[in-house]
Amino acid sequence: MSTETAHRNGVDTPTLFATLDAVRQMPEAAHFQFRAHNEWIDGTHSLTRIHDFFGVGEERAHEREFVFDADHPAVLVGRDHGPTPVEFLLHALAACLTAGIANIASARKVTLTEVRSTVRGDIDLNGILGLQDVRNGYQQVTVTFTIKGDAPEPVLREIVEQSRRRSAVYDVLTQGVPVDLRVQVA
Amino acid sequence: MSTETAHRNGVDTPTLFATLDAVRQMPEAAHFQFRAHNEWIDGTHSLTRIHDFFGVGEERAHEREFVFDADHPAVLVGRDHGPTPVEFLLHALAACLTAGIANIASARKVTLTEVRSTVRGDIDLNGILGLQDVRNGYQQVTVTFTIKGDAPEPVLREIVEQSRRRSAVYDVLTQGVPVDLRVQVA
Repeated sequence: MSTETAHRNGVDTPTLFATLDAVRQMPEAAHFQFRAHNEWIDGTHSLTRIHDFFGVGEERAHEREFVFDADHPAVLVGRDHGPTPVEFLLHALAACLTAGIANIASARKVTLTEVRSTVRGDIDLNGILGLQDVRNGYQQVTVTFTIKGDAPEPVLREIVEQSRRRSAVYDVLTQGVPVDLRVQVA
Repeated sequence: MSTETAHRNGVDTPTLFATLDAVRQMPEAAHFQFRAHNEWIDGTHSLTRIHDFFGVGEERAHEREFVFDADHPAVLVGRDHGPTPVEFLLHALAACLTAGIANIASARKVTLTEVRSTVRGDIDLNGILGLQDVRNGYQQVTVTFTIKGDAPEPVLREIVEQSRRRSAVYDVLTQGVPVDLRVQVA
């Protein structure tokens, strides 16, 4: 296998398959814990640091610390220092499906030349404002992908479909997850 | 009301209440659509732009475009150009609950001096790797808040609890949302 073929779509396919084999031998290696550390700045503005995580049996860290602001825009009585929290959900969904598409295409020997998506989330803020009995969160999310590669249309569609079937973020957003909220008063 | 009191916790409380009144008069103003535009770079690395949104009856935009990378760390066969998509879910949850806490505290005339949180998400990657019949997403998410302010402990706890009750991200993550996935082959 040439290096070009081995790294189709920028995916290190030999390492990907080796990782799969390693986890097959040692399933507990697949237990990960991800973390985000948030600090309130003021108003609706807060800052999150993402660095440490646990996986493959030990404490690990990203190569650098990632820092993100979140805020509300002026029309929602914030100062627009960052996107709203709900917009990060849309980013997470697009990024998860897209990473899956690249991995799956590579495993299937399909070379991709373009993957773009727009994610739209419709929300009725009467919910969070407590003014009407509607849900607080998005009522509907729509993802629109454009994909291009050296395979027939049904193969490309099936790659997206398989990514959807194996997406962690798609699963959490569509099925929900138990959230345990603990409070310590300082 | 002094400016200091009106802007307790950096929240423009008069504008917050005026916004509530305005939406009460014109409920359709509360229909928002948020959007994220993602572009695959290579491997598991993609880039999301967040800028345009719809709300209060018209197309709007953040003051600037926000751009975020997402990737996998090396241990998950990526190049660590950004956090993993699932980590952005944790950030979104912390940021949403925290913004709510600040708004609610201000409305209740409580001055906050500290709000910190860590969000942890446990995930068994045997799901997304297709090796075991476990869910793809987080199995459990835990949020731990530390809050400090000029009110008794029960009042501070109730502020966090009310934020949870009115959080858009908490709602989406715990209840799920319908996601419609459309694919266009270029």
